[in-house]
Amino acid sequence: MPLFMDIHRDVEGSFEDVVGAHEMDLEKQEEHGVEYKHFWMDEEEGTVFCLFEGPSKEAGERVHEEAHGLTADEIHEVTEGH
Amino acid sequence: MPLFMDIHRDVEGSFEDVVGAHEMDLEKQEEHGVEYKHFWMDEEEGTVFCLFEGPSKEAGERVHEEAHGLTADEIHEVTEGH
Repeated sequence: MPLFMDIHRDVEGSFEDVVGAHEMDLEKQEEHGVEYKHFWMDEEEGTVFCLFEGPSKEAGERVHEEAHGLTADEIHEVTEGH
Repeated sequence: MPLFMDIHRDVEGSFEDVVGAHEMDLEKQEEHGVEYKHFWMDEEEGTVFCLFEGPSKEAGERVHEEAHGLTADEIHEVTEGH
C-alpha cells in the first residue's frame, strides 16, 4: 500500500485539539482503506505532518474531509528510509 | 530531547542517493548529539522529510552541512502523536 506524508499549515488550536481531530480520522479511515500512522505538530507555527498508508492521496484527503474538514495543503507520496 | 521534522525541496537524485546521504548523516550525528530517526522521500517531486532528535534545529542542520552539504529548507520542532 502506498505511503503518504501530508502537510497542514496555519492550523489553529493546540496539540490536544489535533489529537482530537486525529481520533476522528481513525474512526473514518477504514471506510476509505486508509491507515493514519503518526502525526507530528509544530505547535508554535501551527504546522501538522500526517503519515498515512492508503490507496491514494485522495483517499487520505477524503478521510480528513469527512472526519473534521481540515484538509491538507500538500500531500506527497513517499518512500520510507531508516 | 526535542524532536524535529525538516523538509528539503527540489532534491536531485534518486531514493538510493538519499539513502547514501542519510548514511553520512548517521556517521556525523553523534558529534552533535543528534539522532536521525527516519526519512521519507517523494522521489517524483524531490521532497525529503527527515525526523530527528537533538538539542536544537541548528545541531541537526550542522550534521547535514558537515555530512553532505544538503541543508533543509524548513525545520520544525514537533511533538509526535500516534
